Amino acid sequence: MALEYANRMNYVKASEIRELLKLTEQPGIISFGGGFPAPELFPVNEMIEISKKVMEKNGAQALQYGPTEGYRPLREAIAKRMKKVQVDAVVEDILVTSGSQQGLDFAAKVFIDPGDYIIIEKPSYLGAINAFRAYEPNFIDIELEDDGMNMEQLEKALKENKKVKFIYVIPDFQNPSGKTWSIEKRKKLVELANKYDIAVVEDNPYGELRYEGELFPAIKHFDTEGRVIFLGTFSKIFCPGLRLGWIDAHPEVLRKFILLKQGADLQSSTISQIEVATFLNEYDIDAHIEKIKVVYKRRRDLMVGIMKEKFPKEVKYTIPEGGLFTWVTLPEHINTRDLAVKALEKQVAFVPGGSFYAYPGHENDMRLNYSAMPDDLIIEGMNRLADVINEALK
Amino acid sequence: MALEYANRMNYVKASEIRELLKLTEQPGIISFGGGFPAPELFPVNEMIEISKKVMEKNGAQALQYGPTEGYRPLREAIAKRMKKVQVDAVVEDILVTSGSQQGLDFAAKVFIDPGDYIIIEKPSYLGAINAFRAYEPNFIDIELEDDGMNMEQLEKALKENKKVKFIYVIPDFQNPSGKTWSIEKRKKLVELANKYDIAVVEDNPYGELRYEGELFPAIKHFDTEGRVIFLGTFSKIFCPGLRLGWIDAHPEVLRKFILLKQGADLQSSTISQIEVATFLNEYDIDAHIEKIKVVYKRRRDLMVGIMKEKFPKEVKYTIPEGGLFTWVTLPEHINTRDLAVKALEKQVAFVPGGSFYAYPGHENDMRLNYSAMPDDLIIEGMNRLADVINEALK
Repeated sequence: MALEYANRMNYVKASEIRELLKLTEQPGIISFGGGFPAPELFPVNEMIEISKKVMEKNGAQALQYGPTEGYRPLREAIAKRMKKVQVDAVVEDILVTSGSQQGLDFAAKVFIDPGDYIIIEKPSYLGAINAFRAYEPNFIDIELEDDGMNMEQLEKALKENKKVKFIYVIPDFQNPSGKTWSIEKRKKLVELANKYDIAVVEDNPYGELRYEGELFPAIKHFDTEGRVIFLGTFSKIFCPGLRLGWIDAHPEVLRKFILLKQGADLQSSTISQIEVATFLNEYDIDAHIEKIKVVYKRRRDLMVGIMKEKFPKEVKYTIPEGGLFTWVTLPEHINTRDLAVKALEKQVAFVPGGSFYAYPGHENDMRLNYSAMPDDLIIEGMNRLADVINEALK
Repeated sequence: MALEYANRMNYVKASEIRELLKLTEQPGIISFGGGFPAPELFPVNEMIEISKKVMEKNGAQALQYGPTEGYRPLREAIAKRMKKVQVDAVVEDILVTSGSQQGLDFAAKVFIDPGDYIIIEKPSYLGAINAFRAYEPNFIDIELEDDGMNMEQLEKALKENKKVKFIYVIPDFQNPSGKTWSIEKRKKLVELANKYDIAVVEDNPYGELRYEGELFPAIKHFDTEGRVIFLGTFSKIFCPGLRLGWIDAHPEVLRKFILLKQGADLQSSTISQIEVATFLNEYDIDAHIEKIKVVYKRRRDLMVGIMKEKFPKEVKYTIPEGGLFTWVTLPEHINTRDLAVKALEKQVAFVPGGSFYAYPGHENDMRLNYSAMPDDLIIEGMNRLADVINEALK
């Protein structure tokens, strides 16, 4: 048997994180690998109340098919919530998706023909890069500085390449780097997108998890022409196991996404949508987010503290103002894939940085997650990791 | 603003059923349109018990990320359940999907490059045709006879076209026609697939809903080379609102689907998976299916009875041995899209047959669903529809 697959299957790769997940299921592993939220913060008791209430009140509706666009009260609650990032949204702007990962897949599916160009940050989220690869684009990666993309490089790329379909950015506490775009660069990005008439895909899973200062306005806040497609998710501010996210886009653009969703999975889970709508409308999600922030901030401080104290001076790292990740850059002669093997011998996991680049040749970074492990394991794991790094740099 | 979309967006169309759903949400409409299961049969009380139990026992796990392949106890239960259609499966053969619709999307994504050929039944499920269109294939549609595809036509098509990637069939109580493939044609299909070395996508959402006689072995039962990809779903035998289905395929083939799922939505809902696994392991799904069958059989008989009594002689229809649909063929000069407008004036909805063909020119069929409406509304709605048809044929 020699089944012939589509050309795209030559490009689709296993997510290093998803593969790592399997390893980290082993007991005893201290994992800074996945982007897992802390399970002890999940609102389990509230979910017990909510699921009972939804079943008793709306059981038959909750278990039935519903509209592709999503459960209307959830779409309304999401539209209202977009005010947090200073976006005025109406229900017609909102499509409920199965996590924001589905929004990434759809963005590529809506825009990309094989050989088209898309612009991404360098580095960028590996799950996005992999999702995009299935549509056979060419990647243009633009240096990510501490305050966002290098704007000169970006404009140069836009000028040179006729078939750029969209710019993909994660402006708040980026995955993997932890960096946040400045207000100025957000504005400038929209100006450039307007000038060159292309779409922007703004991926914002962590924006509300800011540990100091005020929430920034989304890039979509500056969008005057309806070309910014905003992806949100309940995975980090509520829980990922329900697989619910959303797209906020101009209805004309959103229409394309709705059509794709019909073919891709008809709709997201009705019951989960009603449950989340109930949580948003009858419970206090802001108080819940505050609780999360207290814990994650403390864990970030713990992790950064140990890096400061124990990592060799040549090792650089970001101190994110929010989100789940810090990004560690080692001297160029260090290969973090090799380092990961050594760390695993000491029962510590992280994601080597290479997967977060569209092109090979960047092997000296690593992404560390601080949200998933309890404080004592962060201390223990970071001490072990510091030993591994010190050993490698000796 | 003139965003440039991918070429595929020229082919992706709104599902007539999904659009119809919006209409049928209006109170007072008697809908034979969607493929909705009867909501009054959903195991609401069991779900109340199960969701409480899952949250109390496994709350944090249920709300967390899980593996892309699916929750292992659910995969095990599915593998065991494949015995119902005489397929020996192991856990490594099973990928949990977000409904079988996602399996359809993935099948196209795994195999189709623009311009490749796929073979489908004529007519075929419109949700599949639409999902496939997003990958820009050429369709070859093969006459569906009462016992399956016309095998001479099929072999001729396989001989003539070098780039056929797969054959897509719904062998049990087909959507839309209600027809079932004979054992002989199932065997013959696998022989041809082996001979021409191509894949078979077997879509089986209704197979267990057989109202008379024994369950047929799946086409996959005859698969000796691992080329049949079986799609199953809990939507019709349990409830669709959870959005859970599965793919049973040879692990080597399944690997491709798993990679696509990573990019498409990471995984299906953890909580729903644990809930369904709990239902399968601790409750009696076979008894539940028996309950469903009693009701649907009665509704089929009601619907068919009225067609027999009231429809004009020139009107043909299928009497399905299971599943959710009957397929009505009117004289060729009747356009069922026009008829649908007239029926809606009388508050009755159905899906015009044209959408179930890959190519235009088939406008005299209609699909009628008998699972979703209570008995009295089937009687009332079918009497109205008979009036509309009699009027049109006068």
